[in-house]
Amino acid sequence: MARIAIDMDNVMADITTHYLTYYEAAHGIKLDSETLQGVPEGEALPEGMVRQFLNTPGFFRTAPVMPGSQEVIKALCEKYEVFIVSAAMEFPLSLQEKLEWLNEHYPFISWKNIVFCGSKTIVEADYMIDDHDKNLRYFKGERLLFTAPHNINLTDYKRVNNWEEVAEELLATAPAVL
Amino acid sequence: MARIAIDMDNVMADITTHYLTYYEAAHGIKLDSETLQGVPEGEALPEGMVRQFLNTPGFFRTAPVMPGSQEVIKALCEKYEVFIVSAAMEFPLSLQEKLEWLNEHYPFISWKNIVFCGSKTIVEADYMIDDHDKNLRYFKGERLLFTAPHNINLTDYKRVNNWEEVAEELLATAPAVL
Repeated sequence: MARIAIDMDNVMADITTHYLTYYEAAHGIKLDSETLQGVPEGEALPEGMVRQFLNTPGFFRTAPVMPGSQEVIKALCEKYEVFIVSAAMEFPLSLQEKLEWLNEHYPFISWKNIVFCGSKTIVEADYMIDDHDKNLRYFKGERLLFTAPHNINLTDYKRVNNWEEVAEELLATAPAVL
Repeated sequence: MARIAIDMDNVMADITTHYLTYYEAAHGIKLDSETLQGVPEGEALPEGMVRQFLNTPGFFRTAPVMPGSQEVIKALCEKYEVFIVSAAMEFPLSLQEKLEWLNEHYPFISWKNIVFCGSKTIVEADYMIDDHDKNLRYFKGERLLFTAPHNINLTDYKRVNNWEEVAEELLATAPAVL
């Protein structure tokens, strides 16, 4: 079976919507995600607030699920060896929360297929779905850039804009066993 | 630089000594580690107690450091790209504890070089140091079996009995840049 490494933040979890919600709750200001197009993730909110929210207990545990991700990942699990690979080590609080979040929303994914890491250079797979250039850049397999506001101007990779497009890319022609 | 994936339990952390200590504290019985030679890890203590201890809060956080591991790993970091790769996902409580333990005892290891996973089949490296057949079996690089009571009869891999032998194996001839 071919192996897919799937990122969590901004791919399975809608982190952008989530920090905009946190920002509005904290400051009463509703930002339009359109204003974030092309802005590096760390600069999306004033004064390092993205990073501050990422370090807030409960932030990852309550993140909304990216539409379509549950159904498509479940289908991918039938045809591929699916690993969830998250650069969680930068935010130590997130480790437990991310594991609980995965168990709640994707109960069909075994603990054996979850990887929390720092650098993703150590990951060996046939496909990687990720929203970050730094994760895709050194990956040797096929690379799918999942659209997020911060990566909108990146042209180095095949782009998927949503989970429907992931399904079109990976489910239409994928054989049961490679 | 060549990359080494180093296991934590029974390689960096002396888990066997630690659960014997827990067992003595709980039951007043001092077991000799010699009696565990060749016994599968899960059967080392009566009635699934190894697993019970592994799920006890504080167990991983207070594990003793394997003698010589700090000095040798620090030296390995000069000549190799060192990743710590632990199958921590089976014991969710251990995630935070293992990260804190690493930060305390191996402060020179960056969060970027730490991987908590389930299956280690996704790990790509040139060397793997591990005490478990299940982790070494599918690894494509050079495999070093770190001696632990449960693996004493395993003859499939090059064996290292302690960190001095790891140093002899990997530091004597390793070039600075491969």
